[in-house]
Amino acid sequence: MAHENLTLLTPGPLTTSPLVRKAMERDWGSRDSAFVNLTSELRFMLAGLANGTDTHVAVPIGGPGTSAVEAAIGTLVGPTDRLLVLVNGAYGERVVEIARRLRIPVEIIRGPEDRPIDTDHVEAALRNNPEITHVALVHCETTTGVLNPLEEIACIVERFGRLLILDAMSSFGALPIDVTISPIAALVASSNKCLESVPGVGFVVVERTLIANAASVSPSLSLDLHAQWAAFEATGQWRFTPPVQVVAALVEALHQLKQEGGPPARLNRYQRNMNLLLAGMQKLGFVSLLARAVQAPIIATFLTPSDKTFVFRTFYESLLSRGFLIYPGKTTAVDSFRVGCIGAIDHHVMERFLTAVSEAKMAKKNFF
Amino acid sequence: MAHENLTLLTPGPLTTSPLVRKAMERDWGSRDSAFVNLTSELRFMLAGLANGTDTHVAVPIGGPGTSAVEAAIGTLVGPTDRLLVLVNGAYGERVVEIARRLRIPVEIIRGPEDRPIDTDHVEAALRNNPEITHVALVHCETTTGVLNPLEEIACIVERFGRLLILDAMSSFGALPIDVTISPIAALVASSNKCLESVPGVGFVVVERTLIANAASVSPSLSLDLHAQWAAFEATGQWRFTPPVQVVAALVEALHQLKQEGGPPARLNRYQRNMNLLLAGMQKLGFVSLLARAVQAPIIATFLTPSDKTFVFRTFYESLLSRGFLIYPGKTTAVDSFRVGCIGAIDHHVMERFLTAVSEAKMAKKNFF
Repeated sequence: MAHENLTLLTPGPLTTSPLVRKAMERDWGSRDSAFVNLTSELRFMLAGLANGTDTHVAVPIGGPGTSAVEAAIGTLVGPTDRLLVLVNGAYGERVVEIARRLRIPVEIIRGPEDRPIDTDHVEAALRNNPEITHVALVHCETTTGVLNPLEEIACIVERFGRLLILDAMSSFGALPIDVTISPIAALVASSNKCLESVPGVGFVVVERTLIANAASVSPSLSLDLHAQWAAFEATGQWRFTPPVQVVAALVEALHQLKQEGGPPARLNRYQRNMNLLLAGMQKLGFVSLLARAVQAPIIATFLTPSDKTFVFRTFYESLLSRGFLIYPGKTTAVDSFRVGCIGAIDHHVMERFLTAVSEAKMAKKNFF
Repeated sequence: MAHENLTLLTPGPLTTSPLVRKAMERDWGSRDSAFVNLTSELRFMLAGLANGTDTHVAVPIGGPGTSAVEAAIGTLVGPTDRLLVLVNGAYGERVVEIARRLRIPVEIIRGPEDRPIDTDHVEAALRNNPEITHVALVHCETTTGVLNPLEEIACIVERFGRLLILDAMSSFGALPIDVTISPIAALVASSNKCLESVPGVGFVVVERTLIANAASVSPSLSLDLHAQWAAFEATGQWRFTPPVQVVAALVEALHQLKQEGGPPARLNRYQRNMNLLLAGMQKLGFVSLLARAVQAPIIATFLTPSDKTFVFRTFYESLLSRGFLIYPGKTTAVDSFRVGCIGAIDHHVMERFLTAVSEAKMAKKNFF
């Protein structure tokens, strides 16, 4: 089966633009001034995207987004601190697992996967537990696609004098994130979601004073975010060999984001994709897991049809043969599958996808 | 200054072939069968390169090579073990730092940076210290380019019933490494050195029984090599989003290595590059740091000329303007600079480089 010209309707890696991939066509000396300048441009643009140029610094780190989350937690939360993790999906659970491995004391608020985190619970936990020093939140839980109330939670955390660590993996670059509005100590994201680049590098946009004071906390050498930052500040270079082509692609992707009109324009495109997807899938008889009000325009979860002739594997292969890759479900609550709205795709692509779903549905021996 | 068509005479990232870079031109769904198959092919080829298909498994992990080293140390050496690190350069020191951060008890043998590790010292240490469970060795120390005696040390370590962890970062794919000849518990390397691919993924080729019994040792979630291995075995998929384009490039690079005739053919090419380089530089008045017998055909270190008109920065820029990127020195013992022999380059490139050095030397206001 030819997978070469595939449209990825997945939460990342996703469909990238030809220009982004073209940016990987050359070699770079990782300690040469050309790459030092590229890195400096990258860091400046990432901090700017969060409106944090005056207060925050961007610290990129090679590897998957989870390594960047671990670097942030392991460097910013010390062994005598206490981390409250707000969990309504697999990525919240992952933060808990990271912290437990690092022997960081953890408190957990767990809510249902199809609902945003309840801000009253956060407020009560902070009021009742003065030992909590940090709060970790996943902005958009791609487990289901639910959007958590960033601004409200950020303001509560600030009011109680605690520090917010935000996993903005699948929201940064599209959903509004402004550290001057939502006080965020550290925001973690990666290259391959709403920034629409290839995977291989994560980053943390962190308060400058916070990272400057986080020396010798990390139990890991390679995930020591303070040392990573200190090297950038001292020499402009990465501590360890960076994925140079992946970095070049990300810088190109950031230029494309700017050309598109920044996060608001990108959000509009994603929102249009999502609106089309939800309406079209509903017409075709699929039921969305989430209530419309809590659905982020990133990824949608659809319930597996109860009709026993529906086999997800067959559906998946049928769409694949039509050039579209979808994602299996991740929530443990119900049988489901997922369709992403992000990447270098627009409403024309979404319309073609809906046609493909319709064809897959009609095809003999498939389902329904 | 145009850096676009640069030849990198560096120890990685290095010059890659157009076909390797072309392999990055497409998108991949990281959980789709096409990418699962690609990953399976990658793992099979990497284990085969070490002649370890019957006994070892390859576990790739996203990020720089140092993360892969840390994953191996943190997963295979437990808190009640004791690690002997053989140090004759910066990469040996890095293993010490990784282990200390992880609170693993460490013994160290330090030797001069311009000499191989003394095998008598290793034997004595293992005889006198039965608490040592693991030995870490850097095969080729790119600090200077010195080659350590892998086979002898591997046999000593086995004779004493200890386990060898080999940092083969800058040797794997060119220098002979055969786990049926040199008993190696775990070998760590990365995509962007003698395998001649782009940076962004490291890997560990590890004894199957060893990794299978290493559950719950790693204090890190994202660098837990056992969990990474278990996910590959269970689903064929990566635990966390892999750098899909980097992986595709590495698989293409491994095919090219096979086409070239495998590591022996590649070693011949590098050896010819190195012979030309050393002879040519000597003619031009440069002095090599290492004795010829201990010089690996990977990277050469040249002493900074004592002539005060020589300014490294000027020399570097002058070569850069001629299309060649060299590397500053890393040894702390003497002022030096380094020139790599590895990457998609042959003796024609080396000859052009020597011409460029000659021109840089002759150019007014430069040096000498």
